[in-house]
Amino acid sequence: MSATSRYLGDHTFSVGEIPASDPGPGQVRIRVAWCGICGTDMHIFHGKMDARVKPPQTIGHEMSGTIEALGASVQGWAVGDPVTVRPLDSCGTCAACRAGHSHICMRLKFIGIDSPGAFQESWCVRADLLHRLPAGLPLDRAALVEPIAVACHDIRRAGLVAGEKAVVLGGGPIGLLVALVARAEGAETMVVEPDPGRRAFADGLDLATFDPGSGDPVAAAEAWTGGDGADVAFECSGAAACAELMTRLVRVRGRVCVVGIHTRPAPVDLFRLFWREVSVVGARVYEAADFDRAIALAADLPLGRMVTARFPLADIQAAFAAAPQAVKTLVACS
Amino acid sequence: MSATSRYLGDHTFSVGEIPASDPGPGQVRIRVAWCGICGTDMHIFHGKMDARVKPPQTIGHEMSGTIEALGASVQGWAVGDPVTVRPLDSCGTCAACRAGHSHICMRLKFIGIDSPGAFQESWCVRADLLHRLPAGLPLDRAALVEPIAVACHDIRRAGLVAGEKAVVLGGGPIGLLVALVARAEGAETMVVEPDPGRRAFADGLDLATFDPGSGDPVAAAEAWTGGDGADVAFECSGAAACAELMTRLVRVRGRVCVVGIHTRPAPVDLFRLFWREVSVVGARVYEAADFDRAIALAADLPLGRMVTARFPLADIQAAFAAAPQAVKTLVACS
Repeated sequence: MSATSRYLGDHTFSVGEIPASDPGPGQVRIRVAWCGICGTDMHIFHGKMDARVKPPQTIGHEMSGTIEALGASVQGWAVGDPVTVRPLDSCGTCAACRAGHSHICMRLKFIGIDSPGAFQESWCVRADLLHRLPAGLPLDRAALVEPIAVACHDIRRAGLVAGEKAVVLGGGPIGLLVALVARAEGAETMVVEPDPGRRAFADGLDLATFDPGSGDPVAAAEAWTGGDGADVAFECSGAAACAELMTRLVRVRGRVCVVGIHTRPAPVDLFRLFWREVSVVGARVYEAADFDRAIALAADLPLGRMVTARFPLADIQAAFAAAPQAVKTLVACS
Repeated sequence: MSATSRYLGDHTFSVGEIPASDPGPGQVRIRVAWCGICGTDMHIFHGKMDARVKPPQTIGHEMSGTIEALGASVQGWAVGDPVTVRPLDSCGTCAACRAGHSHICMRLKFIGIDSPGAFQESWCVRADLLHRLPAGLPLDRAALVEPIAVACHDIRRAGLVAGEKAVVLGGGPIGLLVALVARAEGAETMVVEPDPGRRAFADGLDLATFDPGSGDPVAAAEAWTGGDGADVAFECSGAAACAELMTRLVRVRGRVCVVGIHTRPAPVDLFRLFWREVSVVGARVYEAADFDRAIALAADLPLGRMVTARFPLADIQAAFAAAPQAVKTLVACS
């Protein structure tokens, strides 16, 4: 028997025991070690995605574990291998897939949202979505590979390189990971965040922060760069005020990467975009290369400080209830 | 003696005779053949740029002519050479210039706005800003090289290539030239323009048009592309409604090029930008390569139909008064 959780709708999880499934052809069964709570999981918990999730459903996608069984015709993997899963199920035939952008397939299914996820002890998934973890990487750190891969994708979409300066708008988990990965890649960052608690947490990660209540972020970016403007701005807040700021923060031919979710059209300074020939690019999820880079970086990022709460799977209900007070919550699934 | 015009402020030009200047070191004196009226010239005429133009001032920058005198140390040019001028005076030392983006220098002076322009018979300019015209290119066509170079720059910034489909928002002179250059480069275009007269004019250039009063441009773009969305959208209107449309018109990883001037922050669908990983790039003026491409294309574009009004320099006042009714007005300067 194997422990599993199910989101039932309306802020409620069940936890129980079910027989462990056999992996199908091309699948492996993973013994899940850790699974993190993502912002999207919180949206699900709050009932905002019930039409898509169709409860009862096992959710969760920020995971690490070890292979415990191989399905037919799986090659290159062995029982005991430490792995994480890139949870993107693409159609393979739409225009996006045909053009090589299967990560943003027009009919993308996200595993753990549109199909069963990792908040359970044993999880069967397609072997072609596995990424091998280094033997020395602790599995609790490895559960953060997925959100780190988001940050790696953002940095790659922005073309950020060593020696450049980047403003990060928003100091939530993704903003912090963008800043940490940018620093690991050799760039300097300034995190703009109005919340004192989030700023203090970023300060604790030795990230430079700016309080937009204390002055104009555009003036701060100019002062930081000798008047030129930053090379890159990452919009990780989803706030309309940051949409209006973002193109003003960067230099001539600077780049803006929009990561935050803006649920309605937001005002953008298109005159500045035109005048300085700024580029604004959207960045969503990740590609295989971003997972590989995230795995390579995971050992050296201060992930231990990012994980501020841990719960056993039996207490997943409490884990979700307390998640708003945590930076990153991990659930021990086995 | 040489005829010259001067913008005096408040919708008024003077025309008179002055002694022709000798070209300074590194300069040539051009006998100006034709000079077109640009939208920026109209803004000046309406008094909206007096603080920058400082009347009385000779304006004009869409020109063609022949060299009539060489200053000291000018090499590679001869009296009689047909030329046009790339009217950008860069500082050479700012961060943009140092990074190779001198066309959008942070202290850019635009010749014909910030310094004397081409609505005169004889004009002294720096030889390093000259572009040679082919012997067979009529000089009235060559006066459109500057606005064609704007369109070439837009197409290059958008990365538009043969076989792609582009929506052009706005059927004014720049929108039309963007569509014509896109077609010349092997792309298909659809010009979205609400004004029936402008649509009819575009139809006369054999450009496909769409009336946004007749239906949803997003649905039209999808129908045109089998549901995928256009490869590129060019925002040439400056209208807030088009800013809100632009990211919805393009496919996954599609590109939007903002050419129109948005004087205030405009609403942009950043969710679509994020979801489809769209890029939005600003495009301003042109680089030397764009002038070269524009000169190469000028012989084959239907420019004769674009020029709908011609006036002698003596009637520049009437030319500006009538320009709103024309597509492109040329002034014969000698």
